Amino acid sequence: MIQRLAIIGVGLIGGSLARALRRAGCVQEIVGCGRGVDNLKRGVELGVIDRYTTEVAEAVAGADLVFLGTPLGVMRDLLTGIRPHLHPDAIVTDGGSVKSCVLADALAAFGEVPPNLVPGHPIAGTEQSGVEASFAELYQNRRVILTPVERTAPQALHRVTQMWEACGAEVSLMEPARHDDILAATSHLPHLLAYSLVDTLASMRQHHEIFRYAAGGFRDVTRIASSNPLMWRDICLANHEALGAVLTRFAAELRELADALEASQGERLLEIFQRAKTARDRYIDGLQADSEAAE
Amino acid sequence: MIQRLAIIGVGLIGGSLARALRRAGCVQEIVGCGRGVDNLKRGVELGVIDRYTTEVAEAVAGADLVFLGTPLGVMRDLLTGIRPHLHPDAIVTDGGSVKSCVLADALAAFGEVPPNLVPGHPIAGTEQSGVEASFAELYQNRRVILTPVERTAPQALHRVTQMWEACGAEVSLMEPARHDDILAATSHLPHLLAYSLVDTLASMRQHHEIFRYAAGGFRDVTRIASSNPLMWRDICLANHEALGAVLTRFAAELRELADALEASQGERLLEIFQRAKTARDRYIDGLQADSEAAE
Repeated sequence: MIQRLAIIGVGLIGGSLARALRRAGCVQEIVGCGRGVDNLKRGVELGVIDRYTTEVAEAVAGADLVFLGTPLGVMRDLLTGIRPHLHPDAIVTDGGSVKSCVLADALAAFGEVPPNLVPGHPIAGTEQSGVEASFAELYQNRRVILTPVERTAPQALHRVTQMWEACGAEVSLMEPARHDDILAATSHLPHLLAYSLVDTLASMRQHHEIFRYAAGGFRDVTRIASSNPLMWRDICLANHEALGAVLTRFAAELRELADALEASQGERLLEIFQRAKTARDRYIDGLQADSEAAE
Repeated sequence: MIQRLAIIGVGLIGGSLARALRRAGCVQEIVGCGRGVDNLKRGVELGVIDRYTTEVAEAVAGADLVFLGTPLGVMRDLLTGIRPHLHPDAIVTDGGSVKSCVLADALAAFGEVPPNLVPGHPIAGTEQSGVEASFAELYQNRRVILTPVERTAPQALHRVTQMWEACGAEVSLMEPARHDDILAATSHLPHLLAYSLVDTLASMRQHHEIFRYAAGGFRDVTRIASSNPLMWRDICLANHEALGAVLTRFAAELRELADALEASQGERLLEIFQRAKTARDRYIDGLQADSEAAE
């Protein structure tokens, strides 16, 4: 049971965590904190949080669990700001999409990575933002990756694992750098491509007609281009090395496709498309097997 | 009323057209034709077509309307094959995703573009293939682009327009080359990117873990990578000029993003992401306005 949960950043991720824990009946009090007072008030109205403050010192005072649901760019200042006010036994975790940088920020803020810090990343979300978009089922049957380091306290890791499991999530442990490499490929690169595709089309002379005749494929491919630009700027900056590496691979493959296209090499195109379809169909089969196993 | 509709290629597109027209009560008999006998038999069992043949000559004999729902790569041979067997008044239309090439194929097969040929393209589909995947609602509130040329008979254009409207679609007319430019941007490029993204990830050392931790964003971005590779090879080859041009623009934008990433230029990234989000949100608002207007 969590006595007092402080959520810094009551958006889609933090708000959904609050809703899920409340529904599971494993939290007594939830204090929300953020910069947008309207969003926090709405959080109280919706019953997502019990009360709010715009002062992080006040938010974390007396909390036994602190969740940081803010963009990565403010993490270092935030950790520095909460440090003097944390209860010595308080456990701190976060939902950031890049994990090495959170550890680096903690090192800078605390002078060492605190044993009670458990970096985490729920692999869930939508293109929506704010507490209005949050819902209790967001983490149901989704994966959460935790990236403890050697000095992480087993007890802290255990409590954060329990917290996510109470939300219906499946927890995996991973090396921080490995997490960042994998997410660069599966999440950060797709976001970059979606933003880039929409921006390319929007800059074209015929952009009105282009968007007018766009169909379902376009809608799905670009859904994540409606995501929070600030949050994604921070993710890209924080993971720029791993993202740059996978982007280079992608650009090389795209160059190969462009060459095959220019030379009208149908066999080459077919080979790539066929290979991609096989991999994608296998991925979907895997998802279905997972979801059947979860039932 | 259509007396006898011949559908060459009874897949998602042709099968859904048959279902929609039958439901609208505006076709007397539907003859299916294709290479896969199992698929055709299934079409009869499902009531999508009344009977089938694997001979195009037999399929088009006595048909007043002929729909070509085959991949673009077989279009020229198909038009050549049906030419001697078409009734002089028969109207021919197609569902190909590129239109200039269909006109070029008709010119090659007939020596001139026949006045009764109305090139068309329903902007609808799913990543599924075959008659099993077809459904009567596929064209409901979707756009269909027809690309008549100067010598197209108004009567033929009128009948094909009526056919699509009976399926619940909204028909637009467009210059063939303009159609091909626009679809290169909205449909063909996104398919290329989706195939390319999946193939890039599948070729990585950690591909098992990559696909294991892929989330909703990845699933949506790559949905169309499960599309029929052969069909998409033909589309890419047929529209390689327009597609090559938009791919070059996209690659330049991606280069710019990669540079901004490497130089950690947060402002530059934010500007691009923000512009993309604005354009994408406006596109979705437009879709919603359209669908409310249609209700």
